[in-house]
Amino acid sequence: MPERVVTTLEVRWGECDPAGIVYHPSYVDWFSIARMHFLKENGIHYMADFHDGGVTVVVTDVSCHYRKALRAEDIAHVSARLVELGRTRLVFRYEVTNERGDLCAWGETRHAFVDRDTLRPVNLAKFASGLWERLAQLPISPLDEGER
Amino acid sequence: MPERVVTTLEVRWGECDPAGIVYHPSYVDWFSIARMHFLKENGIHYMADFHDGGVTVVVTDVSCHYRKALRAEDIAHVSARLVELGRTRLVFRYEVTNERGDLCAWGETRHAFVDRDTLRPVNLAKFASGLWERLAQLPISPLDEGER
Amino acid sequence: MPERVVTTLEVRWGECDPAGIVYHPSYVDWFSIARMHFLKENGIHYMADFHDGGVTVVVTDVSCHYRKALRAEDIAHVSARLVELGRTRLVFRYEVTNERGDLCAWGETRHAFVDRDTLRPVNLAKFASGLWERLAQLPISPLDEGER
Amino acid sequence: MPERVVTTLEVRWGECDPAGIVYHPSYVDWFSIARMHFLKENGIHYMADFHDGGVTVVVTDVSCHYRKALRAEDIAHVSARLVELGRTRLVFRYEVTNERGDLCAWGETRHAFVDRDTLRPVNLAKFASGLWERLAQLPISPLDEGER
Repeated sequence: MPERVVTTLEVRWGECDPAGIVYHPSYVDWFSIARMHFLKENGIHYMADFHDGGVTVVVTDVSCHYRKALRAEDIAHVSARLVELGRTRLVFRYEVTNERGDLCAWGETRHAFVDRDTLRPVNLAKFASGLWERLAQLPISPLDEGER
Repeated sequence: MPERVVTTLEVRWGECDPAGIVYHPSYVDWFSIARMHFLKENGIHYMADFHDGGVTVVVTDVSCHYRKALRAEDIAHVSARLVELGRTRLVFRYEVTNERGDLCAWGETRHAFVDRDTLRPVNLAKFASGLWERLAQLPISPLDEGER
Repeated sequence: MPERVVTTLEVRWGECDPAGIVYHPSYVDWFSIARMHFLKENGIHYMADFHDGGVTVVVTDVSCHYRKALRAEDIAHVSARLVELGRTRLVFRYEVTNERGDLCAWGETRHAFVDRDTLRPVNLAKFASGLWERLAQLPISPLDEGER
Repeated sequence: MPERVVTTLEVRWGECDPAGIVYHPSYVDWFSIARMHFLKENGIHYMADFHDGGVTVVVTDVSCHYRKALRAEDIAHVSARLVELGRTRLVFRYEVTNERGDLCAWGETRHAFVDRDTLRPVNLAKFASGLWERLAQLPISPLDEGER
């Protein structure tokens, strides 16, 4: 069970804007991709396990800090790790680096579990206990001092 | 019941690409917006009448022809009209013009009605007869010779 | 010169995800639209004044907090105001409300001015003094205690 | 020099719509990705060779035909091949298949070469002769009868 899962993407032309660089909301989309890969590498398939099981993992908060621009055809490595896990929420951290290893952006997403039908928050341990038991085994890498 | 419904959009920064112009798939997205407005202006609300009613109107074919580029903050007028209507399908035509009235793009979408749960094609008159009756009253503007 | 500019959007089908609600990065895109409208209502046209003038206003940080979901065809009012302004940076705040006035999301973007060709940070007062003089007259609404 | 280049993509959550399937304009975006990969596998880098060289390859026409839906986390194989090549234009064909090899969609894009600064059509052999010479060596796979 890897603590950090790295997704490698090639920047798409359509992800860039008239400034010639990646349009900033695209990084927030990349966080979704990296988060789903983190789960998959740890044995949880978002579509089969959450979506089809009636649970939506909504985003309650997102932040992203941009340090270096990327452009079309550049390689981006997006690493994701889980920093908090509870019956009602998840917190992930992400780092985007370029091919040379320079930090291009970093960010965080906070999540709640909601009933897919009503969009109401649920306690996952009660709502889908089997899924919760699997989730509870995910590796957590808490933030250290400098990362807060 | 208007035969042609025009939706006016202001080009978004995020709809443009590194060439500084609207990224071409954005026009296909605009067709969706224009189509939903056409329906709404004719009394049919896509979300309430189709989606919540268990019918998905999928796109089976799309084409778009580009004549003049648009860039961020430009105004685009997207006109939509229905050119064919049947129990199993719909065909729409679109024209995009700029503020001066120049034709920037035109295109067509063809659609099938599918059961939202199974994604299988349905005969709307059987599957949702009330909705079909309302749809059957939509104004149709068949293509003339030069438009084929 | 309005301190707060409200942009009214109709949620697009393509802005929503399989959970049936607006995909969260779309709000970050809406912030861009609202910010450009804030500037325009205050006499500054992003494309003509910044982009064509060789200045790119990059985003250095973004945050968004989600409170209530929106879905396709819903109306969203996105208000934008400028909370900090300097020769090297800008800070904007946004609030998204639905048709009933409920707060759906709020967020912040922080920006730097960069040379469009080199992407290097510039002091706008030196790099484009005429533009800076106009910008310096924008109405600022600093955050109050509860908003930090 | 491969005649057909296949790009394998994992469907992104953000590429799907409230019907739970890939939003149809996303396929048009995939065609761009597949086209750039076709060029790259044949030794031409779009950003370095075209964009930075002052040539934009605009899309003049696009069509896409949808046969089978895909959803998030599905694998899509997008094959691209060049079917026409001239001093003023290019035509590409694409096929999208799922993991089992079923045809999900197919389409075509037609392109013109334009001067990046003026957006005016150019004869590539005159405008950028070195690039044209390299392009002229690309493998062409003309359409056969049944594909027209």
